[in-house]
Amino acid sequence: MLTFDILEYQERLKNTKERMAREGIEVLLITDPANMNYLSGYDAWSFYVHQMLVVIIDEPQPIWIGRLMDANGAKATTWMYDENIMSYPDYYVHSEKYHPMEFIAEILNEIGHGNRHIGVEMDQYYFSAKAYMTLLRKLPNATFKDATSLVNWVRIIKSDQEIEFMRRAGKIAEQSMDAAVAAIHTGSRENDAAAAIYYELIKGTDEFGGDYPSIVPMLPTGENTSTPHLTWSENYFEEGNAVIIELAGCYKRYHAPLARTVSIGPPPERLERLGHIVREGIENVLDRAKPGIYLEELEEAWRESTRKYGIEKESRLGYSMGLNYPPDWGEHTASIRKGDKTELKPNMTFHFIPGLWFENDGIEMSESFVITEDGVDMLTNYPRELIVNSPFHFPDNSSGIIS
Amino acid sequence: MLTFDILEYQERLKNTKERMAREGIEVLLITDPANMNYLSGYDAWSFYVHQMLVVIIDEPQPIWIGRLMDANGAKATTWMYDENIMSYPDYYVHSEKYHPMEFIAEILNEIGHGNRHIGVEMDQYYFSAKAYMTLLRKLPNATFKDATSLVNWVRIIKSDQEIEFMRRAGKIAEQSMDAAVAAIHTGSRENDAAAAIYYELIKGTDEFGGDYPSIVPMLPTGENTSTPHLTWSENYFEEGNAVIIELAGCYKRYHAPLARTVSIGPPPERLERLGHIVREGIENVLDRAKPGIYLEELEEAWRESTRKYGIEKESRLGYSMGLNYPPDWGEHTASIRKGDKTELKPNMTFHFIPGLWFENDGIEMSESFVITEDGVDMLTNYPRELIVNSPFHFPDNSSGIIS
Repeated sequence: MLTFDILEYQERLKNTKERMAREGIEVLLITDPANMNYLSGYDAWSFYVHQMLVVIIDEPQPIWIGRLMDANGAKATTWMYDENIMSYPDYYVHSEKYHPMEFIAEILNEIGHGNRHIGVEMDQYYFSAKAYMTLLRKLPNATFKDATSLVNWVRIIKSDQEIEFMRRAGKIAEQSMDAAVAAIHTGSRENDAAAAIYYELIKGTDEFGGDYPSIVPMLPTGENTSTPHLTWSENYFEEGNAVIIELAGCYKRYHAPLARTVSIGPPPERLERLGHIVREGIENVLDRAKPGIYLEELEEAWRESTRKYGIEKESRLGYSMGLNYPPDWGEHTASIRKGDKTELKPNMTFHFIPGLWFENDGIEMSESFVITEDGVDMLTNYPRELIVNSPFHFPDNSSGIIS
Repeated sequence: MLTFDILEYQERLKNTKERMAREGIEVLLITDPANMNYLSGYDAWSFYVHQMLVVIIDEPQPIWIGRLMDANGAKATTWMYDENIMSYPDYYVHSEKYHPMEFIAEILNEIGHGNRHIGVEMDQYYFSAKAYMTLLRKLPNATFKDATSLVNWVRIIKSDQEIEFMRRAGKIAEQSMDAAVAAIHTGSRENDAAAAIYYELIKGTDEFGGDYPSIVPMLPTGENTSTPHLTWSENYFEEGNAVIIELAGCYKRYHAPLARTVSIGPPPERLERLGHIVREGIENVLDRAKPGIYLEELEEAWRESTRKYGIEKESRLGYSMGLNYPPDWGEHTASIRKGDKTELKPNMTFHFIPGLWFENDGIEMSESFVITEDGVDMLTNYPRELIVNSPFHFPDNSSGIIS
């Protein structure tokens, strides 16, 4: 039931331990579910309770510690021996009296690691302030070190199998975008379009099934296109409105995000013009991308292309991504923005999303790509343009695209 | 665009401030997205970056602080004045140099609250260890107090409109369960069933559209029914296997969860027997539930009913739920378990899920209910039994239920 060959997991563990050694970390407490999956294979929706993977620099296998009812899931999905799966009783769950980190600290003391240099992911969703304070109190002889993103940086260069998974996710993204475009007309509600997207995302293709993306499809519509993170309402689509669609295909937790903007009926000239500007900017960036350059140079390429039109973009243009769990598919490592000196290398993967949001409108077109030996390769192939839909539904031509 | 009347938000705020006063908290920093929504109306998938709602005991309106690109979303979905929406620049996002809590601490200092008694949600997904340490460093004159679940406890008694939303979620749960049952046969993959569920969850009914549930549908199958939190694979269903389905309908962020177990073909006698035991246990508990009793008495009712069959359940039997965001629909307040002295009151709502997991198999049947003036009312109505499907697909009778 392992997703990757056991040798791939062991290679990942070796790379993690090398980083630990450089940082002076002997024991790494991993609470990011993507990092747990990356090193162990563990895949379950159990991250809403405290759990972790413990990597000990001088031990061959990590230890999984979680809730008793999830231990069988850990045995089923990871490569480690059963004795490396440990669990706490249920009375620790969402209790005001007991905290799972008390239990975990006791284990660390018992197996002789309570006084070592311990790395923790300080700025991570599933490592709360209380979790940290509990460890500090129960492990008074340990020396804690911030290891936020330590494993994330190991993840930044993908294996060929990971890239293949992301290509599958890309296929799923394309068919889901088709379903979205087809569902956007005045006879349909925003949630109907979201349902059509979700069906394709999870059904996948005949060859491979879809997994849930770490972020739900976003569908800001009309005035709400001025902000990127509204999901959907139960309102009917209206003629003359634009709709931004941001979604990601997902295969075995690996993502390929894709964003497009649809105009319901002929677009205002302004939106059409923005569509051309964004497309030109994207193509300039893709032309520049190749191994050896810094990420900030991609931001420069965007700025050179768009400033002649008076466009200034305050927010970052994209980020490294791949394996993840809710609430984010981004990897929290390299960003396409000013000052980012990450050097591009083959098999790095990015979501490039130069969204523009103004006071009353906005536009998004995005691309997911992989760095190759001499340039980039796209993870999704979808017409790179503002999509113009007929406002009305044509059952015989379900996409209803005008242009 | 407000989901509830402004008076309902103000009543919620008043109840929150009363609790703050009792706890000696003057300024409450709310990072739980459900609590942010509950008090302000804010609804967006932006909780993957740091954000908060600040409730000041002597100020009439809360302050929303988040990422610049999300400020328009806050203006669109909340009841507060625009000047109470504040935002930090994008270079704070996922940076190793800057942290959004530095910016937020500066605002608190500037507006004169940096030296007060400040409540923080210490054990909450979106308040990281680093967020807390940053506030401690930047607000040296503040006195911090753990306010985990303070607002959650205000949420435990629902308004009539909230109950109505949960009834709608219940309808969506029922139709999604129908779709799940219909899709479980040997011609279908696990992800095909998940796609069918998702379509119904989001499409909702003709009268109201569905929202995304805070947890994805769980579909542990075969031996994996021994653990509850595995999602789905791309394997075909096999004759003789059982499948546990746990899902929730969701309407405007309000949930109604529902779990059932399906046997593909005639079930083993053991599973059938477990089905009867669980059903009897559920009915004993529902008979006992009414205002005035303690939650632990529901656990007693379950134990009395099931111990004669040799069943012992280690994990809790259920929890308060309603409004929420990923990764959990549970409210993290009251649990149906030994020692929980929460007194039942009208308009409390629970997901009662006495799942049984053994070494190689398991069973789940659950019910969502609301406490009424003199008993309980169900939020979902679905046959309370082990569902037995034909292993084969009958296109004319898509559900294919044998019994």
